[in-house]
Amino acid sequence: MTDPHSSPNPATLWGRVLVDELTKGGLEAVCLAPGSRSTPLTVAFAEHPAIEVYSHLDERSAAFFTLGRARRTGESTALVCTSGTAAANVHPAVIEATQARAPMLVLTGDRPAELRDSGANQTIDQVKLYGDAVRWFADLPEPEADERKVRSLRTTAARALAETTGPEPGPVHLNCPFRKPLEPVDAPESIPDSFPETTAARGRDGPFVDTQQGAVELEVDAARPIATALADADRPLVVAGPADPTDLQRLEPERVIDLAEQVGAPILADPLSGLRFGSHIERDGPVYGGYDTYATELPDPDVVLRLGASPTSKPLRHALRDADTRQYVVDPAGAWREATFTATDLVAARPESVVDGALEVLSSDDHTAESEWQPWLDEAERRHWKRRDEARDDLATDPFEGAVLASVFECAPDRATVFVSNSMPIRDADRFGRPRAAELTVLSNRGASGIDGITSTALGAGSAIDADEPLVLVTGDLAFYHDSNGLLAVDRCGVDATIVLLDNDGGGIFHKLPIEEFDPPFTAQFKTPHGLEFDTLAELYDLEFEAVAPDEFEDAYERSLECDGTQVLSVSFDAEASHRRREALERAVAGAVDD
Amino acid sequence: MTDPHSSPNPATLWGRVLVDELTKGGLEAVCLAPGSRSTPLTVAFAEHPAIEVYSHLDERSAAFFTLGRARRTGESTALVCTSGTAAANVHPAVIEATQARAPMLVLTGDRPAELRDSGANQTIDQVKLYGDAVRWFADLPEPEADERKVRSLRTTAARALAETTGPEPGPVHLNCPFRKPLEPVDAPESIPDSFPETTAARGRDGPFVDTQQGAVELEVDAARPIATALADADRPLVVAGPADPTDLQRLEPERVIDLAEQVGAPILADPLSGLRFGSHIERDGPVYGGYDTYATELPDPDVVLRLGASPTSKPLRHALRDADTRQYVVDPAGAWREATFTATDLVAARPESVVDGALEVLSSDDHTAESEWQPWLDEAERRHWKRRDEARDDLATDPFEGAVLASVFECAPDRATVFVSNSMPIRDADRFGRPRAAELTVLSNRGASGIDGITSTALGAGSAIDADEPLVLVTGDLAFYHDSNGLLAVDRCGVDATIVLLDNDGGGIFHKLPIEEFDPPFTAQFKTPHGLEFDTLAELYDLEFEAVAPDEFEDAYERSLECDGTQVLSVSFDAEASHRRREALERAVAGAVDD
Repeated sequence: MTDPHSSPNPATLWGRVLVDELTKGGLEAVCLAPGSRSTPLTVAFAEHPAIEVYSHLDERSAAFFTLGRARRTGESTALVCTSGTAAANVHPAVIEATQARAPMLVLTGDRPAELRDSGANQTIDQVKLYGDAVRWFADLPEPEADERKVRSLRTTAARALAETTGPEPGPVHLNCPFRKPLEPVDAPESIPDSFPETTAARGRDGPFVDTQQGAVELEVDAARPIATALADADRPLVVAGPADPTDLQRLEPERVIDLAEQVGAPILADPLSGLRFGSHIERDGPVYGGYDTYATELPDPDVVLRLGASPTSKPLRHALRDADTRQYVVDPAGAWREATFTATDLVAARPESVVDGALEVLSSDDHTAESEWQPWLDEAERRHWKRRDEARDDLATDPFEGAVLASVFECAPDRATVFVSNSMPIRDADRFGRPRAAELTVLSNRGASGIDGITSTALGAGSAIDADEPLVLVTGDLAFYHDSNGLLAVDRCGVDATIVLLDNDGGGIFHKLPIEEFDPPFTAQFKTPHGLEFDTLAELYDLEFEAVAPDEFEDAYERSLECDGTQVLSVSFDAEASHRRREALERAVAGAVDD
Repeated sequence: MTDPHSSPNPATLWGRVLVDELTKGGLEAVCLAPGSRSTPLTVAFAEHPAIEVYSHLDERSAAFFTLGRARRTGESTALVCTSGTAAANVHPAVIEATQARAPMLVLTGDRPAELRDSGANQTIDQVKLYGDAVRWFADLPEPEADERKVRSLRTTAARALAETTGPEPGPVHLNCPFRKPLEPVDAPESIPDSFPETTAARGRDGPFVDTQQGAVELEVDAARPIATALADADRPLVVAGPADPTDLQRLEPERVIDLAEQVGAPILADPLSGLRFGSHIERDGPVYGGYDTYATELPDPDVVLRLGASPTSKPLRHALRDADTRQYVVDPAGAWREATFTATDLVAARPESVVDGALEVLSSDDHTAESEWQPWLDEAERRHWKRRDEARDDLATDPFEGAVLASVFECAPDRATVFVSNSMPIRDADRFGRPRAAELTVLSNRGASGIDGITSTALGAGSAIDADEPLVLVTGDLAFYHDSNGLLAVDRCGVDATIVLLDNDGGGIFHKLPIEEFDPPFTAQFKTPHGLEFDTLAELYDLEFEAVAPDEFEDAYERSLECDGTQVLSVSFDAEASHRRREALERAVAGAVDD
């Protein structure tokens, strides 16, 4: 590593000071996409020994890779791209990051201010390019070896990092104008002789400004009415929705289970909540996962404690809406993430402080509660998994996509990262992924629920895990096509994965919608069959490819999990048949519970 | 086609009225990407007989395809995508469209207002998503069979189209919130009985509001000083930079040539100006194309008339800057597109009115002019092309990329569309594409000069030309990879092309820059070799692929131009050797002219 203070010109100095400060603040990884205007940043990141560099060629994929890594680690991850439309390619991932609360730092190279709106080549308006989708935006001053400016640069770097992991983590954009020379060549007299010895140039031993971030805590007294309401309810309920990276790491599942058990509340745990899988799962514990099938029949809860974002399950969301009862929505950032508008209470505090406060109240009050509806739920849950397993036994004759998701979770080793695409895979994960006492980190891009950038986000998450922890990506064919460029990272960034490709040649989810009845335009404009042969795509990126029959999936999956390299396990389905199978299962379970 | 006024529900009505009005305003083509929330738009476009529909799966590629078609035709072209990050994927093409002044109408499906910022699924903030990059943004009201609302919808549709082709053409964004039902299903009582008979529902025979767009014309008196300055100059110069679609179609090259000949001014014609190629080119005419090689040696012009955007050629831009003389920059939108800041006069008027005005002045004043520097230019030009052709004779032993661009233009049939990627291809087109009396429409994304979306933009342009006019795309390997998804449109949208792939395994342009001397990080972070085998990519999209030696390129190219289907002609080069060859040629020509 070269010391910032011995830099040969202002642009190089600027890049080095910025990277020096970011690493002192804890930054460990960056995704770089090639470009000229961002050269000072690229050079500084590439030469810094504390930085893991991931090189990408498509900025859209690079940005999703950054997002994936940020989500898996919960730590700020940086992206560098050059000026112009390169920066606009980052926009989709920035939006997902803001809604998924992923700490992502976007650094864009730019021309100096005088060239903006001047007709200069590859120059666009990058100021506030991502609008309100970032937590913070700063347009850096032009590099100069000036003490105040460099102090401001160090402060800005420290602040940018802190903003990505504040009370509401998310993306931050630093726009970085540079003038030539951009490369580390000598520019005589551009740096005053006295400058290298200043504090600004040298920095401090640690961060220039160390951020102590306070937390939003609920006082115990404020938790009392919540605890009491739950304890006094006949049908109390805890709903654990998709959780943000920080929640995922901080909220101890055992504490939520303690609370649920004390008040007799079942926990309906989204596969993305961090509660459906883990060592806290016990056979007779309060965590339920089959609700997507039976939520329409669910007796109305009378008090609901909601953690995390809005649940993936639409039947569950509708059941909560129709119950129209007391609902506490807990959100550490005080966001009102409840689109059915039936919340009665917003609790703006860290979920763990709410749970801990409620437990403290209950323990001092010596509450014990019995819930009248647990037998109903136990029976519904039992029947759901029974029907699911019966359906899995029939796979050779009656294939359906949900069985693959069932196996993905059931056969994953105890400690694995599973990334699930949007559209049908996440819905099937929700419905068919049975709670299990295994450390499965389940991720999906549910912030904005796009099918763009899925492969890259998964590989970014995979870049952050130990070599002995497998990465599984479950994706549909449209999402796989959409981010086909992302596959370059398998080799380029050295990430191994088991890619489960559910290939139904088009948008299977549209079979769920009324548009199915209108053809045209259904097939041409919604279902959109493309006929792509994904073995050829796998060949392009040097991946092993295996076409797997539905009833042979588990074997192929287990083989892949045990070997190195990246395998694409492609399972072909008829989307319509799969959807009819889901409907039949739903009817069977609902009917059985009614009996 | 189903009449708007017989629609079964407000969303369907809305889609149909919007499309009805857009087609009445002249819209002929739309690119559709699948999605649920945009269903009313998709259904209405798909069922309309006057609309050409192009179906895409990746919104980024779809948007660039839209852009390409808009640029080739100069006419508004629409894009429909669903809510969420899908809309953000359109951002790069919108930025290119704004800077290239391409008339593009982006219609995004959205949730109704009450679901914004509510945590609802696939809901992001789409209001002013593209910031200042659009000419106009409107957030439509929610569909309702209300007369005033529907009148406003028709007016908004007419206005949106007009804004895309105003004095400064460009992109317009209509955000379209819809509530369910989104499909054309009956929603009893949602449409009042009396409504279908209203003017709002029925529309008018033509557009609801017919826009008469005035033009920005220069009065003849105001053209007089320009004409006089040119005529009185010793070394007058006309520089024709990249032209916008509307300029391209409206400005008659013969008039510019008349003016140039009357004042004795050479025309340095950018390959994207519409002036370098065409029936107006004559052997001893005033159009020069070799200046990129000899601009550094160019005697200082004393009066410059600049049409179009900033020239592609950096040596030319620098020569104009160093001349520091009287420079008239003509721009129909009054934009100040001159990033060397040496313009002395901005002429905010249609270029044709400036040229016509100057011609009128000169003719009435009976000007005749002799230019003292034409012999110098003739000699420089002659030597440039001679050296170029000598280099082409040596291709078997001394291959270089520029020779391919020379052949692309020289062997194209008289009437062809040639799309040239950014980075090195457009620079080589500028330097090695010799002026020729053939109708070649040359396009490139020089608005923001990105290497994203190149293939899609080319195919979009190709979708607008007659079957007997070939489409040629010249691209580097990084751009080809970046928009690999765009290749799906070859089959899906039925566009044939000859794709000339200059494969130097990475970013050849970086060899032009000082960063070449710093390795690391040069190879890993700038040159970025990827080793992709593009024959496999061609196979994925069912394209014919041919690996062609540099000295066999012309034969392969001519064969491809004569046959149907899409051929990828891949010519491999060593980027560094090609760059050294360019430098040697430049030295040879410069030296020769000095003699």
